[in-house]
Amino acid sequence: MKIVIVMGSDSDFPVVEKSVEVLKKFGVEYDVRVMSAHRTPFDALEFAKNAEKEYELIIGAAGKAAHLPGVLAGVSCLPVIGLPIKSSTLDGMDSLLSIVQMPSGVPVATVAINGAENAALLAVQILSVKYEALRIKYREYKEEMAQAVRAKDAALQERLK
Amino acid sequence: MKIVIVMGSDSDFPVVEKSVEVLKKFGVEYDVRVMSAHRTPFDALEFAKNAEKEYELIIGAAGKAAHLPGVLAGVSCLPVIGLPIKSSTLDGMDSLLSIVQMPSGVPVATVAINGAENAALLAVQILSVKYEALRIKYREYKEEMAQAVRAKDAALQERLK
Amino acid sequence: MKIVIVMGSDSDFPVVEKSVEVLKKFGVEYDVRVMSAHRTPFDALEFAKNAEKEYELIIGAAGKAAHLPGVLAGVSCLPVIGLPIKSSTLDGMDSLLSIVQMPSGVPVATVAINGAENAALLAVQILSVKYEALRIKYREYKEEMAQAVRAKDAALQERLK
Amino acid sequence: MKIVIVMGSDSDFPVVEKSVEVLKKFGVEYDVRVMSAHRTPFDALEFAKNAEKEYELIIGAAGKAAHLPGVLAGVSCLPVIGLPIKSSTLDGMDSLLSIVQMPSGVPVATVAINGAENAALLAVQILSVKYEALRIKYREYKEEMAQAVRAKDAALQERLK
Amino acid sequence: MKIVIVMGSDSDFPVVEKSVEVLKKFGVEYDVRVMSAHRTPFDALEFAKNAEKEYELIIGAAGKAAHLPGVLAGVSCLPVIGLPIKSSTLDGMDSLLSIVQMPSGVPVATVAINGAENAALLAVQILSVKYEALRIKYREYKEEMAQAVRAKDAALQERLK
Amino acid sequence: MKIVIVMGSDSDFPVVEKSVEVLKKFGVEYDVRVMSAHRTPFDALEFAKNAEKEYELIIGAAGKAAHLPGVLAGVSCLPVIGLPIKSSTLDGMDSLLSIVQMPSGVPVATVAINGAENAALLAVQILSVKYEALRIKYREYKEEMAQAVRAKDAALQERLK
Amino acid sequence: MKIVIVMGSDSDFPVVEKSVEVLKKFGVEYDVRVMSAHRTPFDALEFAKNAEKEYELIIGAAGKAAHLPGVLAGVSCLPVIGLPIKSSTLDGMDSLLSIVQMPSGVPVATVAINGAENAALLAVQILSVKYEALRIKYREYKEEMAQAVRAKDAALQERLK
Amino acid sequence: MKIVIVMGSDSDFPVVEKSVEVLKKFGVEYDVRVMSAHRTPFDALEFAKNAEKEYELIIGAAGKAAHLPGVLAGVSCLPVIGLPIKSSTLDGMDSLLSIVQMPSGVPVATVAINGAENAALLAVQILSVKYEALRIKYREYKEEMAQAVRAKDAALQERLK
Repeated sequence: MKIVIVMGSDSDFPVVEKSVEVLKKFGVEYDVRVMSAHRTPFDALEFAKNAEKEYELIIGAAGKAAHLPGVLAGVSCLPVIGLPIKSSTLDGMDSLLSIVQMPSGVPVATVAINGAENAALLAVQILSVKYEALRIKYREYKEEMAQAVRAKDAALQERLK
Repeated sequence: MKIVIVMGSDSDFPVVEKSVEVLKKFGVEYDVRVMSAHRTPFDALEFAKNAEKEYELIIGAAGKAAHLPGVLAGVSCLPVIGLPIKSSTLDGMDSLLSIVQMPSGVPVATVAINGAENAALLAVQILSVKYEALRIKYREYKEEMAQAVRAKDAALQERLK
Repeated sequence: MKIVIVMGSDSDFPVVEKSVEVLKKFGVEYDVRVMSAHRTPFDALEFAKNAEKEYELIIGAAGKAAHLPGVLAGVSCLPVIGLPIKSSTLDGMDSLLSIVQMPSGVPVATVAINGAENAALLAVQILSVKYEALRIKYREYKEEMAQAVRAKDAALQERLK
Repeated sequence: MKIVIVMGSDSDFPVVEKSVEVLKKFGVEYDVRVMSAHRTPFDALEFAKNAEKEYELIIGAAGKAAHLPGVLAGVSCLPVIGLPIKSSTLDGMDSLLSIVQMPSGVPVATVAINGAENAALLAVQILSVKYEALRIKYREYKEEMAQAVRAKDAALQERLK
Repeated sequence: MKIVIVMGSDSDFPVVEKSVEVLKKFGVEYDVRVMSAHRTPFDALEFAKNAEKEYELIIGAAGKAAHLPGVLAGVSCLPVIGLPIKSSTLDGMDSLLSIVQMPSGVPVATVAINGAENAALLAVQILSVKYEALRIKYREYKEEMAQAVRAKDAALQERLK
Repeated sequence: MKIVIVMGSDSDFPVVEKSVEVLKKFGVEYDVRVMSAHRTPFDALEFAKNAEKEYELIIGAAGKAAHLPGVLAGVSCLPVIGLPIKSSTLDGMDSLLSIVQMPSGVPVATVAINGAENAALLAVQILSVKYEALRIKYREYKEEMAQAVRAKDAALQERLK
Repeated sequence: MKIVIVMGSDSDFPVVEKSVEVLKKFGVEYDVRVMSAHRTPFDALEFAKNAEKEYELIIGAAGKAAHLPGVLAGVSCLPVIGLPIKSSTLDGMDSLLSIVQMPSGVPVATVAINGAENAALLAVQILSVKYEALRIKYREYKEEMAQAVRAKDAALQERLK
Repeated sequence: MKIVIVMGSDSDFPVVEKSVEVLKKFGVEYDVRVMSAHRTPFDALEFAKNAEKEYELIIGAAGKAAHLPGVLAGVSCLPVIGLPIKSSTLDGMDSLLSIVQMPSGVPVATVAINGAENAALLAVQILSVKYEALRIKYREYKEEMAQAVRAKDAALQERLK
């Protein structure tokens, strides 16, 4: 049970790091790679071609004209999660559209702009289709999240008294 | 190996039908349901709560302020694929943002606006993490797609001679 | 005469606080709750189901794929005011469209992005349909606002002399 | 219990007509007026000034640089519902922003672009804060809506058998 | 030869100040007023009704749902220049569309978002249709502007040597 | 008292024709010219240079990357009204931004997308700063417009009885 | 002197055909190929790798999440012209951003949405850096274009007499 | 082998400087000029008319209603690269659309918003159609870029060990 996060640039790591934390929390093994659809296209394709041997899922993170997730999805049969990175202009709208608007035949499972935490959680959900143990952990996570919201509500009630 | 497509309105069916065709092609069992996050919220939550017993994955299709996929994802531990439906105004941009911009903790795997075929293909990719046979079919599908592109290229070369 | 403000996250409180000030000024009783359409969906629905017993109106504040006001409006018969919160990307456009573009049958009374003051004022206007005393206060408020504008104009005339 | 719908142009009537149908269904008395914030500004202000005497709520429908609802709200203490009309360009985005982005102090309760049905339903919800009988009708309407969704789901199950 | 700048809020003055500087430079007499289409609608209309007696042109500056220029143009026969002010969200796109997208019959001469300098220059151009002396000054201004560009180019050539 | 309408392409004439009708109605003499900032740049500049001799105002109509009004305004001291033409993609947003977002120093008085009628009315307003007779006609026009709205309102009241 | 047009899908040909006409007019030899960055990624990379041997320039045409031009530019050293194709939703904005917003290091020379004629003209301009004869033809083309504008202007003057 | 970068304003130089660095690296001779389509239109046209004598390519950088590259392309037969500069509002979207959406007949080879590095690299690619030595350098640059990505990937692997 191992997945891989591929970033178009190592400058995306501060965002991607939140994916890593989630994967650690869930005990999902992972690699993080820097690879570019534009600067190292053959590396990226070669990697995607062999990804199935080592990984069960790919997260592709990229900004601007964000082609990396789509290109990986063009090669690999693995599910590819696309994480649009907010860039210096256009607030990430270019990244989002470049990732989500994939043509028929090659889907990319897109999450919110800079939604690194959700990219990893989606990976967990997908893996838990196969791994029952992960499903159980995810259910606990959901319950914790609910409890956290309830705790915040309770704290607010205290504060507003 | 059964999935469910939930539509916010039966008027979404002409788009959703293309998902159904893909699922048939791949031999994935499916149900299609009409359920609304706004008009039948308790039905939707109750459904989502029990979805895990019967299904391995949910596709949620909705337009405008498209809350259905997110609400189902709030309840169920299953992966939820979000299919934004193009509505009468704003070209589906409202549907896309309402589905993809989910807050931390509750991801929805979003595909392109009206990308019904890709929603189903993503479902196939996710299931094939578990079901090897589906992976094999998907690999064949990818190869067919490639051959179709090559055939179209060949036809064009003929035509342009 | 009591209303409730429901926030999707307690991080929305710095914005929502301006609603609270307005309600205090008008002497409208209120509760503020943290509840999430995605993290505590059953709590939210249960709350909405019973809201009518205690409250006369709901203000729902949420950011990004802002489903909370719409989901509350799906359950409750009370008027629901939607307050789109500006998030870290897209300048609140995602929140606005997720709240205002509600499908036929389930309206949400949407105010401007981060328009917390207006959300509360709209609540006052709505309540004053029933409560004559509130109408009188609101008329005074409008007059004060006009006087403030006139005072600023006068101050500017002084300054520019 | 009477409300008024004010349109910026009689060309908005085909959209506004759906509001009228809803009001009829709920037995809410109404007037429909054509009045322009730009072409008959004094009429509009005079009307707004006296609206309180005859009406309990205003729906303002307008397209493009849609100032009518905001201008009425500037004068009247009544709640003003803003209905953005989709115009020949920009898909109604100009109407929506011109109506919803009201500055602090003067809210307009905005519904979806061309959401005429919802404008009327919101009026019903607001009035039902005062008129218990209307609340009961609205609850029935919500129940009918839910039943309609369930019926459509059932019909689809038949069809897909 | 006197014009008036009307601002929706005195918080717009830091932007509007650049208009004032241009008017001073050209020797155009001016008043600056704070007046609101929403908070002091009757003042605004009354002002617009009488503006012709004292002024030859109106500049209307406003942000968000920026109705002020359009409302003044609805009343007065004077040319109205609209200056969209960038607000805290949406980068001034709401202000721009609220001002420029005026319906048939009531034009507003719109300049760029925060384009205060240009609003005043446009006023000068319009007045110079009547006042030959202003035209001559404007021609000099254009020539100065050209010389400034040429000087900057020369300075750059020095710097890059 | 003569003005000129310059179009970037003769395909803009069906829109521009509405400007012509307004000018005829007001008895403003006009020429209509086809000239392109891109295809006949020297013609356009030469024309703009001499425009002052024959005309008192320029209307520039153009679509897509609509440079014509800005380029004419760069040369001529006359007021330039910019009329953004809706093109085959992007709904005229490209034309609008290319015309309205002029840099400091060279304003273009922009009207709504395809707002040909308003372009001509703005011309009338500007000319009437100088020509009192035109002001009187414009005042009548405004009054007619108001009467037309009132007549439509009356007709609607009849119809809805 | 041969170039190649690569389309992501043969459904782009009706747009691309206008490029072909321009190339014919200028006597530039060309191939047109169908190849997909997503469906035949290895073909596309292999093609791009060898393109230099046969071609002097690449035009890449694609819609939606339009990765083809960027991916070709990632591999080949040839200049790559990107032609964004308008798709069924979002009016080509997704195609434009996916093509033009390329990250540092790998430029794509982007033309207007559906600007097939301009893609070919840009190719001619680029080739004419090397081929003087093409420069001469292009100068004639520019002159013809100017004459056509002048002829249209003359025709309009006739018509408006 | 000399090119020219023309900026609409010397305030664009901090962005344009990155183009200069790339040109230096590749040994491409260049001039940088300040010239404005609006403030010095005749200078700009005159310059463009003669550009061919001295230069082989033009880079035009401009912000807001960015007409400079299009106007230069209207005159010169040289390929014109358009570099949209991000301005104080709208995040450069106005610059991008004003440059890329050129009408048929006059293309501008547009790069990303603030993509100064890519503007220069595109120039290198275009020139290398003619100058084989530049092609070789560009191939090396591409290889260096790939190596840099691989080095970053390797460094990350170290770090994550």
